[in-house]
Amino acid sequence: MRHTISVLVENKFGVLTRVAGLFSGRGYNIDSLNVAPTQDPTASRMTIITRGDDATVEQIVKQLKKLPDAIKVVDFRDGEYVDRELVLVKVSVDSKARAEVMQITDIFRAKIVDVQARTLTIEITGDESKVEKFIELMKAFGVLELTRTGRVALARK
Amino acid sequence: MRHTISVLVENKFGVLTRVAGLFSGRGYNIDSLNVAPTQDPTASRMTIITRGDDATVEQIVKQLKKLPDAIKVVDFRDGEYVDRELVLVKVSVDSKARAEVMQITDIFRAKIVDVQARTLTIEITGDESKVEKFIELMKAFGVLELTRTGRVALARK
Repeated sequence: MRHTISVLVENKFGVLTRVAGLFSGRGYNIDSLNVAPTQDPTASRMTIITRGDDATVEQIVKQLKKLPDAIKVVDFRDGEYVDRELVLVKVSVDSKARAEVMQITDIFRAKIVDVQARTLTIEITGDESKVEKFIELMKAFGVLELTRTGRVALARK
Repeated sequence: MRHTISVLVENKFGVLTRVAGLFSGRGYNIDSLNVAPTQDPTASRMTIITRGDDATVEQIVKQLKKLPDAIKVVDFRDGEYVDRELVLVKVSVDSKARAEVMQITDIFRAKIVDVQARTLTIEITGDESKVEKFIELMKAFGVLELTRTGRVALARK
């Protein structure tokens, strides 16, 4: 089962290494992870997407809560939350393909953020299914490079 | 000096722990980091934002390149690149503030992704200065929660 875990941490030295170590120490792969400061510069928020049976993930969440730098840990698998991710994708285009890629970009309300003679770089945001669908369509033209932020999530309430 | 480091890695077990350890082992803080799969499911791309003198960051980049799981390491500080990040911000609103927040959201081409009786959750993407400006404006209304993906970057060429 897929889990979306949000960890608010104090901006202390080495906290990312400790959190990542908790997962790798249990043989657990992280699908995606991001960490960046919040509105409070002394705190950062991590969002971790992982797969695994509920019992093991529950154990990891308990360990996360015990970390001295952890302020708040939420496993969003049951809760109501909004999630989004951002992807930059560089697509190979000739003049014919460029028009097609621009049309698809428009339909997905994505944005062209760079144009070169033979490439377009596109920014798309959304939930996972939208982003995955867009990437699938771009593969027909040729995806040269792709970088995704991984999901971020906030509770609705 | 600020550095934007992109690391393409094989999706091997524990690679995040090793990369994070390279920074913390040298007493280097990471401002933001994200890691997620690419178009090739066997590879993930990390983007790391760090501050530090060029010589030390150069050392870290050399160490990153030596990691057996590293496919490609780029320090974007000198190169031409496109970068973006995504932020979800939950703002406290009453009916008067809601109209104002909606106007500002519109000006910044941000999106309202959730509405509750006393809150709005907004998605904004862009470069750092745009995102920072928007967060500053929202602070006047009351930022309840905020999560940001950290930057992702792709070379223009």
